Amino acid sequence: MADLKDTRPYKIVAHMMENDAFSRWMGIQLLDVREGYCKISCKVTEEMLNGFYVTHGGIVFSLADSALAFSAATYGRVSLAIENSISYTKKSSSGNTLIAASSCINLSHKTGLFEVKVTDENEELLALMKATVYRKSEEFPV
Amino acid sequence: MADLKDTRPYKIVAHMMENDAFSRWMGIQLLDVREGYCKISCKVTEEMLNGFYVTHGGIVFSLADSALAFSAATYGRVSLAIENSISYTKKSSSGNTLIAASSCINLSHKTGLFEVKVTDENEELLALMKATVYRKSEEFPV
Amino acid sequence: MADLKDTRPYKIVAHMMENDAFSRWMGIQLLDVREGYCKISCKVTEEMLNGFYVTHGGIVFSLADSALAFSAATYGRVSLAIENSISYTKKSSSGNTLIAASSCINLSHKTGLFEVKVTDENEELLALMKATVYRKSEEFPV
Amino acid sequence: MADLKDTRPYKIVAHMMENDAFSRWMGIQLLDVREGYCKISCKVTEEMLNGFYVTHGGIVFSLADSALAFSAATYGRVSLAIENSISYTKKSSSGNTLIAASSCINLSHKTGLFEVKVTDENEELLALMKATVYRKSEEFPV
Repeated sequence: MADLKDTRPYKIVAHMMENDAFSRWMGIQLLDVREGYCKISCKVTEEMLNGFYVTHGGIVFSLADSALAFSAATYGRVSLAIENSISYTKKSSSGNTLIAASSCINLSHKTGLFEVKVTDENEELLALMKATVYRKSEEFPV
Repeated sequence: MADLKDTRPYKIVAHMMENDAFSRWMGIQLLDVREGYCKISCKVTEEMLNGFYVTHGGIVFSLADSALAFSAATYGRVSLAIENSISYTKKSSSGNTLIAASSCINLSHKTGLFEVKVTDENEELLALMKATVYRKSEEFPV
Repeated sequence: MADLKDTRPYKIVAHMMENDAFSRWMGIQLLDVREGYCKISCKVTEEMLNGFYVTHGGIVFSLADSALAFSAATYGRVSLAIENSISYTKKSSSGNTLIAASSCINLSHKTGLFEVKVTDENEELLALMKATVYRKSEEFPV
Repeated sequence: MADLKDTRPYKIVAHMMENDAFSRWMGIQLLDVREGYCKISCKVTEEMLNGFYVTHGGIVFSLADSALAFSAATYGRVSLAIENSISYTKKSSSGNTLIAASSCINLSHKTGLFEVKVTDENEELLALMKATVYRKSEEFPV
């Protein structure tokens, strides 16, 4: 990871994670990052479950949304999700590790289209997200 | 709220909230509930912010998703979100109160279509969700 | 409709419809238009059915998408749909009249969020669309 | 294609296409089909353009939706799209060939999740669809 840490995508995402309180609450770990791509994970805790003792849909979404935000930021401009569509395919629960990998599908001047896959530690698909970001003119100061 | 508490929709949602650890972490309050409808709120805390000091998209989604789950449950059958599409229209931050109201648009034997509006305390729209739930045969034991 | 025809939203939509070959093929009629809103209809013909003798999902979508495009254009700037999410609630068939009404939910400098309801002639909901448009700088020449 | 024609997925799709008037109007050609997968194409004609002389979004959607319907049917049960979310990445126009490939991402007893990629003849991505189908109990009579 020595080389990775020298890249601008890594520096941007590290900078974002530093200030991201909710991603910290979730215990998000950065697994990989490059231009247009980011892979992160978190471990499901008891506090993340819903009334059926299943990971709350909002936690799965939040991890995918953080991966999306990080991957969109790797291009150097501040980017905001404007539309996220998520489909759930499998339940998870306390003790599972969730892994979200976000890839850029298409980039235009002002918007970007991304796809995020969320799997568990056995590489079983838990959710698939398709999302659109709006790319501001503002550059990251790193 | 005395009469409300006697209704089956209220009893189902109260039962769900009791066991919903993540909704409790968010500090969700039940504002209104009837068959096919549920309105809840939560106050944004510092822990719910992302790296831009803006409410994490996953928190807005989670509140909407809880409202959706509660409103779908009011019909008495266990229901799971299978697809959620959310569009963000306005930022919020620490100190804001988020209010999510979920309404049933269409109900068939096995699926339901819902719309959830998330506003702040000034009734400004923050996000609009359209979601599909799968309705299991299983009844709530209340 | 005399006054309506004097408005800029009407002139913009009339100009768009004139050149829109596929909307003409569908037999689209303009029912109402004002800034941020457009209502159109078309009659389902045999050619619009799928293999189950039901209106092809693409026809319901196309009518909603045309209503969306027209309503977004009423603000005077060329706008392109970048993301459309549609949920189907009821079948229709040959002989039914489809009515699509598109309303602006939120407008920002470069994007807009719209909701489109498609009903039949009995005001039964057939489909609900949520869509995001990208607003170009280019103005309509009318 | 001799062997392909002996497969049940091919027979089901051929049966569906035979009766699908709108797919016929679009001039849809079957390129490939197997369980959980279908690839079809159509050539864009003048009648399929919108007011900007660009392929109407509804045509791109319709081709993707037909590919979805065919791929979902390959499992032998009648399936209906209940939610389709489409993102557009590139314009096309008269003379272009559109190719839509639909793949099953996840299948449960009553629902299925599919992803459809629409490209042009140069394999440039035009649109990405994520869609959910409802699987009826009814079997295809072929």
